Amino acid sequence: MNIRRLSTRDPEFLATLDALLAFDNSTDEAIEKTVAEILASVRKQGDVAVLDYTRRFDKLEAATMAQLELPKDELKAAFDGLPAAQRTALEQAAARVKSYHERQKLESWEYTEADGTRLGQKVTPLDRVGLYVPGGKAAYPSSVLMNAMPAKVAGVRELIMVVPTPRGEKNALVLAAAHLVGVDRVFTIGGAQAVAALAYGTRTIPQVDKIVGPGNAYVASAKRRVFGTVGIDMVAGPSEVLVISDGSGDPEWTAIDLFAQAEHDELAQSILLCPDAGYLDRVAASIEKLLPTMPRKDVIAASIEGRGALIHVTDLDEACVIANRIAPEHLELSVENPRALVDKIRHAGAIFMGHYTSESLGDYCAGPNHVLPTSRSARFSSPLGVYDFQKRSSLIEVSEAGAQALGPIAATLAHGEGLTAHARAAELRLKT
Amino acid sequence: MNIRRLSTRDPEFLATLDALLAFDNSTDEAIEKTVAEILASVRKQGDVAVLDYTRRFDKLEAATMAQLELPKDELKAAFDGLPAAQRTALEQAAARVKSYHERQKLESWEYTEADGTRLGQKVTPLDRVGLYVPGGKAAYPSSVLMNAMPAKVAGVRELIMVVPTPRGEKNALVLAAAHLVGVDRVFTIGGAQAVAALAYGTRTIPQVDKIVGPGNAYVASAKRRVFGTVGIDMVAGPSEVLVISDGSGDPEWTAIDLFAQAEHDELAQSILLCPDAGYLDRVAASIEKLLPTMPRKDVIAASIEGRGALIHVTDLDEACVIANRIAPEHLELSVENPRALVDKIRHAGAIFMGHYTSESLGDYCAGPNHVLPTSRSARFSSPLGVYDFQKRSSLIEVSEAGAQALGPIAATLAHGEGLTAHARAAELRLKT
Repeated sequence: MNIRRLSTRDPEFLATLDALLAFDNSTDEAIEKTVAEILASVRKQGDVAVLDYTRRFDKLEAATMAQLELPKDELKAAFDGLPAAQRTALEQAAARVKSYHERQKLESWEYTEADGTRLGQKVTPLDRVGLYVPGGKAAYPSSVLMNAMPAKVAGVRELIMVVPTPRGEKNALVLAAAHLVGVDRVFTIGGAQAVAALAYGTRTIPQVDKIVGPGNAYVASAKRRVFGTVGIDMVAGPSEVLVISDGSGDPEWTAIDLFAQAEHDELAQSILLCPDAGYLDRVAASIEKLLPTMPRKDVIAASIEGRGALIHVTDLDEACVIANRIAPEHLELSVENPRALVDKIRHAGAIFMGHYTSESLGDYCAGPNHVLPTSRSARFSSPLGVYDFQKRSSLIEVSEAGAQALGPIAATLAHGEGLTAHARAAELRLKT
Repeated sequence: MNIRRLSTRDPEFLATLDALLAFDNSTDEAIEKTVAEILASVRKQGDVAVLDYTRRFDKLEAATMAQLELPKDELKAAFDGLPAAQRTALEQAAARVKSYHERQKLESWEYTEADGTRLGQKVTPLDRVGLYVPGGKAAYPSSVLMNAMPAKVAGVRELIMVVPTPRGEKNALVLAAAHLVGVDRVFTIGGAQAVAALAYGTRTIPQVDKIVGPGNAYVASAKRRVFGTVGIDMVAGPSEVLVISDGSGDPEWTAIDLFAQAEHDELAQSILLCPDAGYLDRVAASIEKLLPTMPRKDVIAASIEGRGALIHVTDLDEACVIANRIAPEHLELSVENPRALVDKIRHAGAIFMGHYTSESLGDYCAGPNHVLPTSRSARFSSPLGVYDFQKRSSLIEVSEAGAQALGPIAATLAHGEGLTAHARAAELRLKT
């Protein structure tokens, strides 16, 4: 395999790195047009439109939308029908994810000032959330768990899942995960029409307040377009891992960790930074040795040749500077002393510390969420969490004495902005 | 004035209410096309394009982008030049806003499990934030304060403000507020070209990580389009107030509070809910009496006639149900005992409790932010806050013992999803 080898000593390094990171996420005009039509049609015709698109795109016939709702018994049967080892693993993962996320829950707060004025914020869960789950090969039970659990922990009253089942083909693991995490209702619809149904509501499908979950380009476009009518999560790009090694690890562990990212998708990105050129050679050799043993070796090879790199850095400090520039979705600190580096990292979706912390443990069961900011968005966004299913309302209770102190300030500023009614509202509360 | 009077006893009430709340935020294709061109042009040509658009749209000539940066001395001079009362009011407001927002700061957290595995989240501020400030009449110093202060409290390293100055006309109050809150750099550019410059960076203007602040339809479209490359705040709709009264207040106070919302904009929405029909009559009479005294009476009348309503409800519980349906930006609980109602409110940007808490005190100086979710988005989003300028990275440090416990779970689930490299990464860490 032809693995890209770079060095920070190369004067062209930063330009080469930026080109390697660049990812064209520009929108496709044909998709945009189709999605705009689907949204308008579902908004206007509701269930009828959704049934029609489901017939056309998913080759699934139904006379009424109610026929496309899965009974709860069917979810439970899917769970009960899993092999015991899978069922137990799913339960153990769910318990750990729940326990971690419970620590993220925001609480209301309030304080009282000397004059009796009380200020604070009230935190409430969202009422109803829609969870989009892709059909086909990208439908992962772990993803159902990771998207639904924070909503459940937040206290969301109703969680509605949509999952396309082309020609009626259902994914038992996905339904089992939905049962385990406590999804309230499931409709077997997908695409932009499912996003539209959740965003606007139809006679059968209630309007939600936020839509989360991964999807293809049509789903991503639909989510962007309904943003504002409902909340949405980030639109995800290809998955990425950045490994910082000090050369102390087992090169096979590092090679496999790069593979684990690469096997997702040919556009996935796996990059290794190390100050030890000999270690980079050993990882390259392990990659060559282990690749033939991987069932998804073609995807892995395409991903690593197309978007991967082994980068020789001068030292670990420089590796951290590069990590902050990349702001990776996953960052492995595969070093003897990860705590010495972690304070230097400002931007990363998740930081995996030490040789035993493979990214795959985090994907499934360590506890933290696997829905993470991609494509450098860790510069400004966070892992999916309970806080994404809670919102705040400011609380303001000004006492009579407080109104005397604040009124003149507000009135002065309001007059300065030419907003007389604002000023008068403050002045009316002043004792004369 | 012709004020809409509604009653929840009317069988058509909910349909009438929904029609009144409806606000067409559909995008204008001509604006979309122009904005797409501006973004592409700035992305490609940088400073040259921004200078060109500034010349065309703002009638402002400059040979270089450096000439469009305001020196810090000029901000300070604007502040020093304010009348003493305004300067003091601005300082007092800033101090209160700062004090309130300091309580919003998120902290990193971590915990250790029995087998030594450590899990948590690390919280860091954004590196660099762009603040859009509109030119002309909608440029408010209070808005500079409210947008910039949470970023400063979060610890954002560099805060870059853009503000168009058509034909070179500057707003001294805005510059003074920028000085007071500690904005780092100010460029006198605006429109979609300013958003593009901040999102992509140019030779002179550094790329930011998030863009906040209000703007016209071009700015809103540009922000939506660069979302993902950078973070953005919510795109705001017209401002709204919902007042719940038990009939115990002074009808003139209520009338003026409705005016304060209405004076913003003809599309602003002011609605009063009250179970006491006589009180609604008294508020209507106060509106007629006080309207002629308002400098912005034409805007107020247009707003109240077009989008306002006095609504007779059966009781305060019903008023809370309607409030949750509206999910208003501003909610005034103008009642004797607001604490009895506040627990019933699930969706509101800010809740103003008691007769002395006019919304205008909150706009300027009570402490909480005045950037609030509009157009029913309080169902899923929050006031602008320090948390909007911080982000989280998951921390995962699995011990050797932890890897033995977690490895089999991860491997089982990974095999179930057909991701062999994920499974192998977990299995390699198992002791044999």
